[in-house]
Parts: sequence; structure tokens; C-alpha cells
Amino acid sequence: MKNILVLGAGRSSSALISYFIKNAPANDWHLTVGDFSLQAAKEKTQHSTAKAIEFNIENTENSRSVIRQADVVVSLVPASLHPKVAAVCLQEGKHLITASYVSDEMKSFDTEAKAKGLLFLNESGLDPGIDHMSAMQVINRIKQEGGEVYSFESFTGGLIAPSTDPDNPWRYKFTWNPRNVVVAGQGTAKFLQDGLFKYIPYQQLFTRTTPVLVPGLGEYDGYANRDSLKYVEVYGLQQCKTIVRGTLRNHGYCQAWNLLVQLGCCDDTFMMEGIDKLTHRGFIASFLGTDKNVEDEIANRFGVARQGEEMRRLSWSGFFSDEKVGLAHATPAQALEHILNKKWKLNPGDKDLIVMWHRFRFLHNGKMSETQAWLTATGEDETHTAMAKTVGLPLAIATKLLLQNKIRSRGVLIPVTDEFYNPILKELNQLGVELRETTVPAGN
Amino acid sequence: MKNILVLGAGRSSSALISYFIKNAPANDWHLTVGDFSLQAAKEKTQHSTAKAIEFNIENTENSRSVIRQADVVVSLVPASLHPKVAAVCLQEGKHLITASYVSDEMKSFDTEAKAKGLLFLNESGLDPGIDHMSAMQVINRIKQEGGEVYSFESFTGGLIAPSTDPDNPWRYKFTWNPRNVVVAGQGTAKFLQDGLFKYIPYQQLFTRTTPVLVPGLGEYDGYANRDSLKYVEVYGLQQCKTIVRGTLRNHGYCQAWNLLVQLGCCDDTFMMEGIDKLTHRGFIASFLGTDKNVEDEIANRFGVARQGEEMRRLSWSGFFSDEKVGLAHATPAQALEHILNKKWKLNPGDKDLIVMWHRFRFLHNGKMSETQAWLTATGEDETHTAMAKTVGLPLAIATKLLLQNKIRSRGVLIPVTDEFYNPILKELNQLGVELRETTVPAGN
Repeated sequence: MKNILVLGAGRSSSALISYFIKNAPANDWHLTVGDFSLQAAKEKTQHSTAKAIEFNIENTENSRSVIRQADVVVSLVPASLHPKVAAVCLQEGKHLITASYVSDEMKSFDTEAKAKGLLFLNESGLDPGIDHMSAMQVINRIKQEGGEVYSFESFTGGLIAPSTDPDNPWRYKFTWNPRNVVVAGQGTAKFLQDGLFKYIPYQQLFTRTTPVLVPGLGEYDGYANRDSLKYVEVYGLQQCKTIVRGTLRNHGYCQAWNLLVQLGCCDDTFMMEGIDKLTHRGFIASFLGTDKNVEDEIANRFGVARQGEEMRRLSWSGFFSDEKVGLAHATPAQALEHILNKKWKLNPGDKDLIVMWHRFRFLHNGKMSETQAWLTATGEDETHTAMAKTVGLPLAIATKLLLQNKIRSRGVLIPVTDEFYNPILKELNQLGVELRETTVPAGN
Repeated sequence: MKNILVLGAGRSSSALISYFIKNAPANDWHLTVGDFSLQAAKEKTQHSTAKAIEFNIENTENSRSVIRQADVVVSLVPASLHPKVAAVCLQEGKHLITASYVSDEMKSFDTEAKAKGLLFLNESGLDPGIDHMSAMQVINRIKQEGGEVYSFESFTGGLIAPSTDPDNPWRYKFTWNPRNVVVAGQGTAKFLQDGLFKYIPYQQLFTRTTPVLVPGLGEYDGYANRDSLKYVEVYGLQQCKTIVRGTLRNHGYCQAWNLLVQLGCCDDTFMMEGIDKLTHRGFIASFLGTDKNVEDEIANRFGVARQGEEMRRLSWSGFFSDEKVGLAHATPAQALEHILNKKWKLNPGDKDLIVMWHRFRFLHNGKMSETQAWLTATGEDETHTAMAKTVGLPLAIATKLLLQNKIRSRGVLIPVTDEFYNPILKELNQLGVELRETTVPAGN
């Protein structure tokens, strides 16, 4: 029997836990789900033989004894806690699988994990995760066929299905950690364009979008992610002239979101004064010279039409209403998240939509070609989201492969080698998460 | 005999050191000047009986023995080092006087300093310093006469004299720490306007300027400083509806500087790739989508005229030239400072200009009145700057008053009580740093 310990029973855990419960009998697995909230762990494991426990990594003694009983730990706790989880896994000699970016602290465990024969596999959800796997499968194939990639672009977005919330002009709702949506893009985006290093500061990020046409689906706006440069080496793209990774949004989102960025509403660095007394409108007015003609000042200051698309989105979200914000203490970002959540929370029956798109331009036998690869996934409802499915399933499959001794690599890794991406993408395909591809001659 | 130890022999120290040298014989002072660079300390003390030493606060043993011999330490070292200086002063039982803002760490020494009978006087240069003293002198007089201040605005700028560098369209040069100029305004400006808390994020700061008319001198642009709210309590202005402190610049500076802010050139959070190969023009292009029509893209993206005032300033500063930046490693802010310094360094004979302006609106006997108070100072040359004079003299005078036992307050303080501001402003006036004032009925 193998013991699987899942940490975190939040928004993204449903598909992961379901996969383990469904495949437990045939594989002789025993599943334990731990969460800060015992209730949340119980909800995700009901009608199953899985065990729900209260788990807090800060409670060192308890954490050690819980992790000691596992064969592998699959963690969905907030990324900032992963070094602590990894430290205990190292002490107790347990494998760890996460969907989080590899931090410097996580990286520092590499030598010791290798020495103990442990796999600490990270960036194995959707983005990061399936994006790495699907990109590397194409990049390595191009290389093996003698081609040379000179341009790589990759964009992913967690959106809502066309049928969901048709009056919502943002075409967006919260399908993962809302806080990450509100502070998205803070810092400076770095990428490579035609052989030159390029930087986009936060204040320009949502105005410098790229149109992305996903075959059969339509056109989206892409904005650059924080650091695309670190993938030059990871992806083996040292010869590549253009490397940019980014986020997809529906048309109009970035232009309207830019107003909130420009106003300063996404600022998470200070507590606002007297937020308990403010209305939504008063919150917005805090970032303006006026407290009367809020709409006019925004339109004038940022050069948007008073009755235009940007203002329609802000208005739909209730930013100009006299409703109280309803928080006693908050940073601007916390207040913004709270206001947005009133309209952006998934309702019963809402379906989300994942869109991932890559474009590779490469030289092969003296000819320039272009391959596009893309993936879409639609959620079943507000709990069984496409987000939970595409984040959870690759984690679950990686766990299964590890427990079946089909993964030999050890240390702190991300899934960029064929040992990971071939079997994981194959099974995802069987589970309905399918990558499509097209190759045509390239224009330049 | 009293021993005065001055730490830091940089840009702002000339007037301070000259004052001590000049007044040493009559007061039986002995002066020691310590700097990281012994050469710098020697230059500032030549032709005098003052002692020049090498001093590095990180060298704990040496620091303690040097400070042990002083009666009072006057420190101009970078603000971030002041908690370390204060810690040694506490150990050795010595008074400390600085021109730096009181940090939380500095504040934490208050109880112990009081217990040991020590004065740790901070914010006693120009801004902060003379601004506090001149504002509090007026505020307390209005209160004593039964008036109630309902609006307080205060702006200070370190500019250049009209006769200096007449072709420089910025009307600006580096007269103090250039790094602080380049990163000025990062964070969020907070102030009180008509009873409402207002916030201006960095990306809006240089577009939301206030015109400031200084009597007899002309009109300037003011932008808000980081946190005006903390002065509500410090100044005893709890009833006041408008409180804003800020920085003055000549017309056109903020609009042009805003382009550098928007581009992302002031970012100090990451090291640029390949900066050693970049020209000024290439540096700017790193923040644009193009690498060819740099000027056109800036003009189009930010909505400024291609031949307009903003572009003229950028062009004058050499941002579009093919000259190499000339640094091996740099953040954008470091590269920007380096490029700006090629044109903004004070040349022999250059004179700087300090402008400080306050406006107080108050109710007195049922009538609304307005008092304006302002100060200007012009430098003698590139070394004997108005900046060095207005930063150094209040520090020097405070030191003299302390050594003459005319200051009774102890603990971590700033000069907002009459014990400080009356004698210091009086002597500054005698030394030619004169505050002028006018009071008229107020419009609202």
C-alpha cells in the first residue's frame, strides 16, 4: 500500500483529490487530505475512504508525524509555504510534488534531495506545468528533427466560458486565488525580442498587449509575464531570438484593468485610512483629485470615453456605487479584491475556460516554419472547474508515475524532460485535456 | 573644551564644517571630521585645526573609540546607517544630531536615550529640517493667537539659479544625492485634502502636480511627498482638513520626468542584461517595443509632441545618442543616474537655488485668513551650494545650542518645538537664510 498525502483542500484541489479517490482501489493507495480547515478537507473527501485531517505546516511536531506516514506529499498550499513543507519532506525522506514556481529557497534543497533519493517536483500544474510540458514536447521534437527554434511565444489564461455570465463585460471571474489576480504583473516583465532584452514596467504592462489568435477559438489579448528570461536556459533556447511568456485575457479586459492599475487600486503596500467608512465610489475617489465627478475625472485623466468600454466595465463592477466596501482594515489591493469578488465570484452552474497557446518559429532545412500548439478546457460547474482539472490532473498523474517507479529523476525539478511530459500529456489527452497543433510555413 | 565629531564629508557638509571651524576658537570646540574616504575628510578640513579621520561605522571597535571621544556626533552619513550610529552613541552616552528622517529603528531608541539624558535630534537639515521649524513657528503663533489652521501646504525644491546653465531645459542639476532624485516618489503619496484621505501612486505622481506661486519669484510645479499624514500628529494639526507636503520643480520638469517614470527607467529592483553593450539610445529602447524609431514611439505612446518640450528635455540629456552608457552592471535607476550625471553634474561656477514655500489657511475671530511663508537661498558656487548651507547650518546651530546647554529636551526628537525653532531660525536669518511672510484674507 502507498500513502498519498494531499496538502490544501481549496479551490484547485477537486480534480486532484477525485483522481486519487477513483484510482486508489486499483493502485492500492491510501489517501489523506490535510487542510488548515478540517471542514474543507472533509468536504473534499466525503463518500470516500480517504482520511481528512487538520494540517498546519507551522505546527512542526504534528507536520512531521503526518508527513512521516506518507510515501509522497502533493502540496497545494500557498507557494510561500513550500520551502517549509520541503524542509519537513527532506527530514522525513519523502517525495514532494507541487504546482508552485521554484523559489531560490526551494532550489537550495536540490543537492540534499538528490543525495536522499527524493523527487521534489514543482511547476507541475497548469501554468506553470502543462505549459512547460507541452512547449518542451514541441521544442525537443523540432530539435530532434534538426530544426532550430528562433522564436517562442506562450500565453495562458483562466477565463470563463462564452455561455457563462453573458452580461459580464470583463468576460472574467475569479477561478483561482483572487489575490494573485489583483496583484498580477507587479514588478517588471522581462523578455527577449528579436535578440534584444526588453522590459515592461507595471505601469505599462496592460497597455502593451499582444493580439493572440487561437485557431478555432478567436482572438485574445496577451500581456507579458514577469520573467521570461529564466526559461532561455531551462528550455534550452540559448539560440532563440524571441522568448516571451504571458497571460491571456478577453478583449477589453486589459484596457479596463489598466485604469485600476493607473489609479493605484492594486497597491498592496499600505493600509488605507478610514476604509471602514468608505463606499465603493469613495474608494475610487481616494485615488482622484475630486470626490464628486469621479467618472468624469477618470475619463478625462486617462483619455477614455465617458460612455466607453472601459467605463462600462468599471461601472458593471459597481465601482461607482454608494455601497459600503465592507472591510474594517485593508490595503487598496485587499479592498479591490473584496469589491471585485461581489461580482466575480463563480455562481452555481458557472463554467470556466482555460486557453493555452504556444507559437514556435523555427528553421528547418533552410526553411522557416511556424508551429502553433494550443489547448482549451471547459469546466463542468463552479466546483469542478477547468482550472482545478488542469492544475490537479498533471500533479495527480506525476504522483501516480512516481509511485509506479516510472520516474527516475531526483532532486528539485520541473517537468521539462520527456520522462515527465510524454506520459503526463498522453494521459491528460485520454482524460480529455487535449493539445492540438498546426504547422505552416512562417512569414519571417 | 568640547569635542564635535562630524561624520560624512560629502556634498552637504561644506557649510556645516565651515561653521564649526569658524566658531571653534570662541567656543573652545575641537572638531573631528570622519569619512569613509580620508581624502574627502582632509579636503573639507584643510587650512584648519580640525582633525580628518577615516571612519566606517561598520568597523565597530574603531567607531566606538572615535565616538567615545566626542561630546556630540553630527552625522551626514546615509540615512540607512543612522540606526547603527545611534546604537554606538547610546552605548557611549553621546548626543547625536542628523538631517535624516526618523526611522522606526531610530524611534525605538527614544526611551533609552531619554533615560541616559541624551538628545538624538533628527530631521534638522533643510527638508526635513527648516521646513518643520518654519512651519511650526507659524502654526504655533496662529494657535497662540486663537486661530485654527484648516489647511497646510508645504513645498521645497533644490533647483538651480536662473543664471546657471541657461540652455538646460530641465532647470535642474544634481545638488544632493543623485540616487534620491532618480528614485524620488517611489511608493505611494498620502495626504489629506478637504477632510478626505488621498493617495497618488508613483505612476500618477508627476502628472498630478500643483501650481505653486512663490511671491516675488514665480510659479513652480509641486508634487506630493510620500507620507504627509504622519505630520497630522507631529504638527498638532488634528483639526486640519488639508495637509500636503511636497517637492518643487521648475515648469516642464515633471512632465518630462514622467516619461522616464512611465518607461520604467527609474526601476531599481533588477539588474539589466547586457548593459555593458548598450548605448543611451539602446537603454531607452529596452523599455520600448521598437529599437528603431525610439523618439516616435515615445511621442506616440505617451501622447507628447514629437518636437515638444518633453522630448526636448530627453534629447538635451542625451537619451537618444549613440554614446555608450559606460557601466558594466546596473539597475535601470543606476544607468539612468549615470546618464543624467553627464549633463546634470554641477560645473565650476554653477549656483543652486533653494525654494521653500508654506501656505496656511486658518480661521481667526470668524474670519478666514491665509499666511504664506517662504525662503530662498542661492549658492555661491558648485561647492558652497545653497543646499549645503541650508542643510548644514541648522545642524550646526542646533549643535552649538546643545553644547551651550540651551536645549533641555532629550530623547529621539525632531525640531518642532520653540526651544529649537526660535533660536535656530533667528540665527539662520542673521546668516542670510531669511524667511519671508505675508498674510491676507483667504478666498475660502
